[in-house]
Amino acid sequence: MAVNLQIPSESEIFPVAGVEIGVTEAGIRKAGRRDLTVFRLAEGSSVAGVFTRNRFRAAPVQVCEKHLASGGPVRALVINTGNANAGTGADGLKRAQDTCSALGRLLDVPAEQILPFSTGVILEPLPLDRLTAGLPGAIAKLAPDQWFDAAHGIMTTDTLPKIHSRRIDVAGKMVSITGISKGAGMIRPNMATMLSFLATDAAIEQPLLRKLAVQIADQSFNRITVDGDTSTNDSFILIATGKSGVAISSESDAAYAAVVQALTEAAADLAQKIVRDAEGATKFMTIRVEEAGSTEEALKVAYAVAHSPLVKTAFFASDPNLGRILAAIGYAGIDDLDVSRIRLWLGDVLVAVDGGRNPSYQETDGQRVMKEAEIVVRIALGRGQVADTVYTCDFSHEYVSINADYRS
Amino acid sequence: MAVNLQIPSESEIFPVAGVEIGVTEAGIRKAGRRDLTVFRLAEGSSVAGVFTRNRFRAAPVQVCEKHLASGGPVRALVINTGNANAGTGADGLKRAQDTCSALGRLLDVPAEQILPFSTGVILEPLPLDRLTAGLPGAIAKLAPDQWFDAAHGIMTTDTLPKIHSRRIDVAGKMVSITGISKGAGMIRPNMATMLSFLATDAAIEQPLLRKLAVQIADQSFNRITVDGDTSTNDSFILIATGKSGVAISSESDAAYAAVVQALTEAAADLAQKIVRDAEGATKFMTIRVEEAGSTEEALKVAYAVAHSPLVKTAFFASDPNLGRILAAIGYAGIDDLDVSRIRLWLGDVLVAVDGGRNPSYQETDGQRVMKEAEIVVRIALGRGQVADTVYTCDFSHEYVSINADYRS
Repeated sequence: MAVNLQIPSESEIFPVAGVEIGVTEAGIRKAGRRDLTVFRLAEGSSVAGVFTRNRFRAAPVQVCEKHLASGGPVRALVINTGNANAGTGADGLKRAQDTCSALGRLLDVPAEQILPFSTGVILEPLPLDRLTAGLPGAIAKLAPDQWFDAAHGIMTTDTLPKIHSRRIDVAGKMVSITGISKGAGMIRPNMATMLSFLATDAAIEQPLLRKLAVQIADQSFNRITVDGDTSTNDSFILIATGKSGVAISSESDAAYAAVVQALTEAAADLAQKIVRDAEGATKFMTIRVEEAGSTEEALKVAYAVAHSPLVKTAFFASDPNLGRILAAIGYAGIDDLDVSRIRLWLGDVLVAVDGGRNPSYQETDGQRVMKEAEIVVRIALGRGQVADTVYTCDFSHEYVSINADYRS
Repeated sequence: MAVNLQIPSESEIFPVAGVEIGVTEAGIRKAGRRDLTVFRLAEGSSVAGVFTRNRFRAAPVQVCEKHLASGGPVRALVINTGNANAGTGADGLKRAQDTCSALGRLLDVPAEQILPFSTGVILEPLPLDRLTAGLPGAIAKLAPDQWFDAAHGIMTTDTLPKIHSRRIDVAGKMVSITGISKGAGMIRPNMATMLSFLATDAAIEQPLLRKLAVQIADQSFNRITVDGDTSTNDSFILIATGKSGVAISSESDAAYAAVVQALTEAAADLAQKIVRDAEGATKFMTIRVEEAGSTEEALKVAYAVAHSPLVKTAFFASDPNLGRILAAIGYAGIDDLDVSRIRLWLGDVLVAVDGGRNPSYQETDGQRVMKEAEIVVRIALGRGQVADTVYTCDFSHEYVSINADYRS
């Protein structure tokens, strides 16, 4: 059951000129599921990607990195669910390349101009025959208004599609921004978290787009965690087709600030939607650390709290067991932390000061906050001026059930 | 339900000359539970301790460190369950000191010669009145044969008492070694894990005992993990009363090797018993990493696997979902890891080679191993000569239930 995950209506999804999408059922792992998605991009599109840092990164991730590094254009993406093509060695690499070749032949573009993506079970061979047999069906459906189908087509244990769309007016011209994401478990920062594809019809030159992809990922997908598990496959792809007539070639361009802000907000929403639909989640938790000496310090504390199974199970139980939060702060790895300076809020309730319980804290106040579906934990360290925020969810019976049953 | 946790019979527990123990029901948190334990140590005993590295370390831990640092003798320990006296600020510190003063008056020793220990709920004031009211009852029971009662008296969410006892013959003289431990959740290495008290009637001089306490903890309690949560309170105390007539004053003494080996094995068993009785555990997992370039590397990989909720839920399901183990190895933080050199065994089954699945691996072989209650995961990194081992357990519905309900 997702936590307050907003799904826009069809009429709120704006196609991005220059992007066509086709989705089909290829039977990759099970029949009757939309599991194969193709993106075709107009000539002249810029594409940049940020990929998992897992050393066991999947074959398609390796192929993506190679194709992007070649500096040539990208004209299509191909995404399958049901199989991650990870932990599959040289044979897996060949299957990812063969996927690109097969789609290239059908679209009449070189294989090097295609990026492949896979998500699903690790350590099993990608069923290449079924995948390539499905490609013509996906291509037959290529159309600009298929973003919703794509959001469905990339889902695995997700319960709801994740989609974000907006239009902004830039000096009288309309710029569209639409993106999708997937991911529900094996979610941890450092771009190892999920698949997300975000497109705009603004023109953004390739070197700037590469820089922007990293910067935007850092403010969105690198600020969420579900279970601390960094996946082998996950990828964020930023596409700029240029079809709107709005062009950005440097950070000093008039349109830069507006477009980047809109892209960042879209990515942050797509990232938070992953947490809202996390496996078994019943609570959406915002962990905000203030008065840190550095971003690294703030994130150490925020992730220690966000990853603690004891904190996460207490939130599942709506139990204001705040000692577990203090314990997590204490083991976050800041060696000279002075706990007597720390203040801790649960929602608007100040629960801890001076290294202990706030004398005026009432358990009933804590319980009132814990019953909400969205909870802000705010921690002031008393060490500096830096603040940062991480988003996570609680840890429920359902998480165990889903992950104990996933392959069965 | 603990996994193969051996409980010795009463006749297998050897008293340690110089150690008397008394246990009582003080009603610290709930009535009708043995929750207060006193150890009285003979004059001339040496005592050393290793304590949590959590910055929110509890008041009794701070008092222990202060009393041990003073260099004076230690004549008694006092241990309560039901309340951790952690996150309690200056008031908590005073209550820990007052506990020592109260026991000191009753035993006629200075408060500085007493070490206090607390375990239980964090962030709530220690009920000092009930604790001190219980002390005379514990003292009335002081006797050398109360180790079993003590093992019960320090339990919290533990389902079984954890006790280890042995005698060794050292050049014709008998040396007794007996210890207890507690802990079931909030278990993570770096001595932040549990309470354990291990005593011998060998004589070991204070500076050597201090060194040994660190060395033994590192080979036992610092090699286990349940949930990665480092607690605020936990402590390992090593006691040498000298009453056996066997004396060790340096590492070159004849008795040194035999006594240290026996103490280390006792501590390792007490540590592994904690994992066997971990909250909700149904499987005991040994994660052995070989061919690492350093101990740090071996432990990074072992703990990444041992902490992964996805790995732990797969083991709960007896599902040989080995890709999750590879993914954890991949995100363990070894930046130049060459995954093509890695080999992975589940029990005696070689499941992965060359960065992918072993071509001759059969899923039925993996399933056979996964159905066992004790499973060895062996990972060869192909980087060097160092090996190390970490012990952990699976992650079940029961873990969520226990931790969602703990305070309720």
